Amino acid sequence: MILTVTLNTALDITYQVKELRPHASHRVTEVTERPGGKGLNVARVLAALGHEVTVTGFVGGATGRTLQEQLVGAERMSDALVPVGGPTRRTVAVVDASTGDTTQLNEPGPQVSPAEWSAFQEAYEHLLRSASAVALCGSLPPGVPVGAYATLVRAARSASVPVLLDTSGEPLRRGVAARPDMVKPNADELAELTGSHEPLQAMKDVRRRGAHAVIASLGAQGLCALTPDGEWHAPAPDRLAGNPTGAGDSAVAGLLSGHADRLPWPDRLARAVALSAATVVSPVAGEFDRGTYEDLVGKVTVAERLGAA
Amino acid sequence: MILTVTLNTALDITYQVKELRPHASHRVTEVTERPGGKGLNVARVLAALGHEVTVTGFVGGATGRTLQEQLVGAERMSDALVPVGGPTRRTVAVVDASTGDTTQLNEPGPQVSPAEWSAFQEAYEHLLRSASAVALCGSLPPGVPVGAYATLVRAARSASVPVLLDTSGEPLRRGVAARPDMVKPNADELAELTGSHEPLQAMKDVRRRGAHAVIASLGAQGLCALTPDGEWHAPAPDRLAGNPTGAGDSAVAGLLSGHADRLPWPDRLARAVALSAATVVSPVAGEFDRGTYEDLVGKVTVAERLGAA
Repeated sequence: MILTVTLNTALDITYQVKELRPHASHRVTEVTERPGGKGLNVARVLAALGHEVTVTGFVGGATGRTLQEQLVGAERMSDALVPVGGPTRRTVAVVDASTGDTTQLNEPGPQVSPAEWSAFQEAYEHLLRSASAVALCGSLPPGVPVGAYATLVRAARSASVPVLLDTSGEPLRRGVAARPDMVKPNADELAELTGSHEPLQAMKDVRRRGAHAVIASLGAQGLCALTPDGEWHAPAPDRLAGNPTGAGDSAVAGLLSGHADRLPWPDRLARAVALSAATVVSPVAGEFDRGTYEDLVGKVTVAERLGAA
Repeated sequence: MILTVTLNTALDITYQVKELRPHASHRVTEVTERPGGKGLNVARVLAALGHEVTVTGFVGGATGRTLQEQLVGAERMSDALVPVGGPTRRTVAVVDASTGDTTQLNEPGPQVSPAEWSAFQEAYEHLLRSASAVALCGSLPPGVPVGAYATLVRAARSASVPVLLDTSGEPLRRGVAARPDMVKPNADELAELTGSHEPLQAMKDVRRRGAHAVIASLGAQGLCALTPDGEWHAPAPDRLAGNPTGAGDSAVAGLLSGHADRLPWPDRLARAVALSAATVVSPVAGEFDRGTYEDLVGKVTVAERLGAA
């Protein structure tokens, strides 16, 4: 199975309102709720592609119970979340009905104690034994050490399990130094990590810092990969009107799926780009449109970059 | 005991953010959560004043469980909420940290089936037997008939239990026609019900429509009462900087508390005005500052209105 780690899981709530106006009162016309956090989004896409997935991370409180209830019966997805005393955070996305513009409110997440963090690491090392790959995704809840992902990367490498890291800021910087097999930064994360706004230079720097393969998601420009086996660029398809929420998580799922299926890098990138695009055009944020995916996956052109600056 | 009815209970969530900007992403710095809906707010104030209170209405889902968990151990407050299949709504108040300005998002509430509405009426009639007074407060959840409050007013009158109605729109119009002992509209509710923007004229009209006593909360102007025993005006104290959330609910609690203590109308109004003011100046929305209340309650001047236009 593929393991995804979401230390800061979330109950993702979406509100439809007519139009959000600061300091006014709004009647919410539609409420939807689903398990969230980047690793859970990755797991959902992997399961939809036919992979067996196990999700872990922290879960607690009434919001955590709701999240876990919604995982019950999800096909090909096993719940190995670890209990924490504080409540799982909510995220609230407020969508203006007319334009689709979204205002996001993110709770910080539960305070994690040292004992809870130790219990998680023990559960994680146990899960690694049956994992073919692991994805470490998203922000850290309060109390988890900033070097948490570095610790988890090292444990995966000790267990010979390929590990992909998708986070930002200092946890990314420390995690990269622990030499993960893959990292998937976006343009902002690359710039923050390296100080360079030139993606290719920044990607080279990230490899120097320790990552074996760097796959950068560059929005409308698609994916760029620097790997031990070569360099590739997979441009995004032309039509991309829609909601980019979850597009990066779908790219991670595509990369892991292609890795699990032992595809060569260009095919992995094609899968990741097609899934990303199919997520943007999906009417539901964070889900992908299967028809669009199947239509696009054969059409993505992946160019080899030879000695690009 | 005093019974308060909140058909559309709520889990009231408050988010502190730096500044709410539409279509941006916000980190919530502080999350608070508490049982809400107008009748629950009224009950909280009554219990704080030393009255035995029972709360009823609908409750359901994970949000409902959280709400009920937070009622456990509340002094002088008994939980007689009736289960409903759908989840209790959330309200989200987003407070800008610098200014205190609040943006409100209100979920609509659970769909109530005819069977659930019948079950509630049965529970309500049972509770009336031991009630010294009842307050019917707030909006109706989807599925509850628009004449619900009229039905509940008639049941209270049949049981000889004094009944106060605090709602708006069509449920208020129908409820008033069922001849409640007291209604507590604000200026907007008065105008909507009667078409008149002159409060005294509108209050007279509300009495003609069926209410025995009309106590209007007129914001900075305080409370006006038209009752079978006379007419009074209790102006609000001067200093009222703060958050008016819950001030109307505190006024309802003051009126009921004074009724329970068999105070004459002027003393009931003084109590209601002092509680309202103490709620506005409280740092926590919907709670009252006891020191302010005790300081103000003896100082409120209540004027008898003789033959006012």
